[in-house]
Amino acid sequence: MTPTPPLLNGAESLVHTLAASGVELCFTNPGTSEMHFVAALDRIDGVRCVLGLFEGVVTGAADAYWRMAGKPAATLLHLGPGFGNGLANLHNAGKARSGIVNVVGDHALGHARFESPLKSRAADIAGSVSGWVRSSLTPADVGADAAAAVAATRDGAVGRIATLLLPADTAWGPGGRPAVAAAPVAPTFNAAAAPGAARTLQQLGARAVLLLGAGGSASERAQHLAAAIAAKTGCKLFAEFYNARMPGGRHLPRVDRLPYVVDLAVARLAGTEALVLAGAVEPIGFFGYPGKPSQLKPPGCALLTLAEPWEDVPAALQALADELGVTADAPLPLPTAPVAPSGPITPESAAAAVAATLPEHAVVIDEGVSSGRGFGAAMGAAAPHDWLAVMGGAIGWGLPGAVGAALGAPGRPVLALEGDGSAMYTVQALWTMAREQLPVVVLVFANRAYRILQGELQGVGATVSGDKARDMLSLDRPALDWVALARGHGVVGVQVATAEALVKALRDGFASGAPYVIEALL
Amino acid sequence: MTPTPPLLNGAESLVHTLAASGVELCFTNPGTSEMHFVAALDRIDGVRCVLGLFEGVVTGAADAYWRMAGKPAATLLHLGPGFGNGLANLHNAGKARSGIVNVVGDHALGHARFESPLKSRAADIAGSVSGWVRSSLTPADVGADAAAAVAATRDGAVGRIATLLLPADTAWGPGGRPAVAAAPVAPTFNAAAAPGAARTLQQLGARAVLLLGAGGSASERAQHLAAAIAAKTGCKLFAEFYNARMPGGRHLPRVDRLPYVVDLAVARLAGTEALVLAGAVEPIGFFGYPGKPSQLKPPGCALLTLAEPWEDVPAALQALADELGVTADAPLPLPTAPVAPSGPITPESAAAAVAATLPEHAVVIDEGVSSGRGFGAAMGAAAPHDWLAVMGGAIGWGLPGAVGAALGAPGRPVLALEGDGSAMYTVQALWTMAREQLPVVVLVFANRAYRILQGELQGVGATVSGDKARDMLSLDRPALDWVALARGHGVVGVQVATAEALVKALRDGFASGAPYVIEALL
Repeated sequence: MTPTPPLLNGAESLVHTLAASGVELCFTNPGTSEMHFVAALDRIDGVRCVLGLFEGVVTGAADAYWRMAGKPAATLLHLGPGFGNGLANLHNAGKARSGIVNVVGDHALGHARFESPLKSRAADIAGSVSGWVRSSLTPADVGADAAAAVAATRDGAVGRIATLLLPADTAWGPGGRPAVAAAPVAPTFNAAAAPGAARTLQQLGARAVLLLGAGGSASERAQHLAAAIAAKTGCKLFAEFYNARMPGGRHLPRVDRLPYVVDLAVARLAGTEALVLAGAVEPIGFFGYPGKPSQLKPPGCALLTLAEPWEDVPAALQALADELGVTADAPLPLPTAPVAPSGPITPESAAAAVAATLPEHAVVIDEGVSSGRGFGAAMGAAAPHDWLAVMGGAIGWGLPGAVGAALGAPGRPVLALEGDGSAMYTVQALWTMAREQLPVVVLVFANRAYRILQGELQGVGATVSGDKARDMLSLDRPALDWVALARGHGVVGVQVATAEALVKALRDGFASGAPYVIEALL
Repeated sequence: MTPTPPLLNGAESLVHTLAASGVELCFTNPGTSEMHFVAALDRIDGVRCVLGLFEGVVTGAADAYWRMAGKPAATLLHLGPGFGNGLANLHNAGKARSGIVNVVGDHALGHARFESPLKSRAADIAGSVSGWVRSSLTPADVGADAAAAVAATRDGAVGRIATLLLPADTAWGPGGRPAVAAAPVAPTFNAAAAPGAARTLQQLGARAVLLLGAGGSASERAQHLAAAIAAKTGCKLFAEFYNARMPGGRHLPRVDRLPYVVDLAVARLAGTEALVLAGAVEPIGFFGYPGKPSQLKPPGCALLTLAEPWEDVPAALQALADELGVTADAPLPLPTAPVAPSGPITPESAAAAVAATLPEHAVVIDEGVSSGRGFGAAMGAAAPHDWLAVMGGAIGWGLPGAVGAALGAPGRPVLALEGDGSAMYTVQALWTMAREQLPVVVLVFANRAYRILQGELQGVGATVSGDKARDMLSLDRPALDWVALARGHGVVGVQVATAEALVKALRDGFASGAPYVIEALL
């Protein structure tokens, strides 16, 4: 910790507190009311700053940073509207159970009583997606408030969004007192749950499902344990469709994810009499559809909680394995590395191209939407990697997530799988990749449509025939030029139209160690 | 109104209601929960759809559309996160007192009880910036709810944001009943205010200020009346710094705006003993600063309300003019057209270039931020135009605003003045300009910095010296390439480095009648 000068302002006490509490990175999109915080970040060592040109970049990056680094980043946002711009990715971060410390500059307390243009209901807006919100009242409070915010980002094995509103006069005023966040408490688990779960799995066999969810439940150790438990008991094993961070690759047992499409998920769970939840929650459809259930488990299926998402899920799985007399240390035969595909680019050949070229220990950001759903099987043969999915369903997370993953896992290559529609929501993230020279390959599936909505339109039974609906769901008039968009943000881009060219572009991109955009024409 | 089939679903009743209530345009960014609304928009005539690739484009466009068309557009947004993405420009629209009907698709009511990925506090988020919020409960309610929403967008002479949450099952369910919004009530004014205002202006002369604000108070008629009143009484005349829509040009009397910078505004109001508010509100600084006042009027200065923003301000000014025996029908001598500048591009030469080239009846969107503040004097010599400012201070309004202004004032050329920092927030609007082939010239001031923040840093007395602060306020590493960004979105772009080239580019852009991006290197 930097030695603290005798008289600090509130902003300086904030930076000292963040640094002393283990917050090493601040994703910033500053405005006027944060100028003293900017000045303090400048003067005081210990917190690195990364600029985003839009708040959604900042918050999406902070989400993925937590998932890879296992500790919170701070964000710097500007009043209610700035928080609003970051809200969608904070929604996603909340569903991912990521820890983030949002610092929101607000009007000076004496100014906030007047109707100025930027007066907003910042606390209300922040409250809609935060698990902890506080507004500092005096400069002397800022340090303790910031320490409480950092502490609030940890909820056992998972994280929480903490938002600290910082009125400008609490930042510029004297009397700042640095503080340090309390050390996190290690997650525990309920050992009493294992015997009942063991009995259920043994009795029901294939009529039981062990479901892996959040909170490290899909860690490599957890996957090995779960696969061994399934092999011993004959139960089915699934992971939730979306997982904040799921290791994958040919060194791991195959753990299928529950399908996104309601009918497919219901079919997969048909005949199940008990769901044993290991860090997972009850499977619920993404949306409600006419005549289709919201709850994906069969009526009457029992729910048994082996471990809550915030508990130590691997330890709970170990207890279950012990109960069953299962060991998970037998090495699995490694399948051979996948063969590079050829021919036209399809979701399947794209998946094969990625599986064949992915470097060891890469981080894959999955916002491929309709084009990305089919990657599961192919990736089982890929090199060891981590797979990060958008957790709250709000698109525009992927490119910011790639920024945060690269900064949260230094030295590891990142691949972002992006739909062209979803990538456009926060395309400004490309610039931050260029500024920070992050090793991110962005693979854009240019189907030039909101393909997922074309599917959903059928899913809800809506019938259309006309040009208006087609126009609202297509992106082909004009076609986006991703090579030009990349160049505009300072990033190299290439367009490919065959699987062979895609394989070469992926290899070139990974070899460059720098941001690299590939527009794949589907 | 289209003949209604015998059995409508809720979504169809919504579209019929919007069309019958005078809503002709819907800015859309649809998601799954709005598929039945999309299908209904497709099948039923009367509401045109314009797609935005990001919700901030949708809401910013709806704001400017209201300002030019004088009637509300609808927006189509997707659950809480989609509303969040549109929130900053709805904040701006609220401060502009623009009328908008937001239609927010929400989860089916039976699905909302479960914890699904996209479950969000949509009503809370919407409530933070809406003047009216309702969630439909049954398909039979949707028509009446939508009619109430349209009616709620009108608040006398100004507008209001109305948000209708539409659970998916109220959209797809049968029993829709179209309705029609009540006709708007014409604004009135308080005739009793004129005699007191007249006495004050006559008694105080130059120690009184007549301040024009929102609600048509800066219309051409109002400006003529106000200038004549000032000439007769000797009072000072100002307009608020930001105005939702202010006619300007060489056919009008000069009406200076109060400065943005607190010290300058305080100096301009020094010695004022009474402020007569004509649709204006008390002048408040944009931000609070250490040792500077929030209230810009001198201590003890009286406030007299001639007309509230929602009243008929021109009629109130007419009553004041009548009280004073003033007529405003004397034509003013037209100054000669401005001369095109030469030499380097500066804020001043850029203003001269715009003043010299602006076509008659153009609409100017002002999000030039630091580079745009100096346009006031030069524009007094320009051809007749309307000037639209970002009203809530949340940047990222300009490019969407240009989309909305072009659609709200068909046939009129639009010029968007943009800072490079502010333009990046909602750069996706360029694509909508290309798709709709809107006659929008975008002039980007490429100072490659958040210049306004570099000024604010000094304004708040914060001192910095290091690279971290410089990096957080600069956009030069890497430089954005606006020609490539434009091409990426399907728009023509040119880069200019001299005033002569800027003049040519402006003329070329206006002549093209299509979207045209000019990157001006400052």
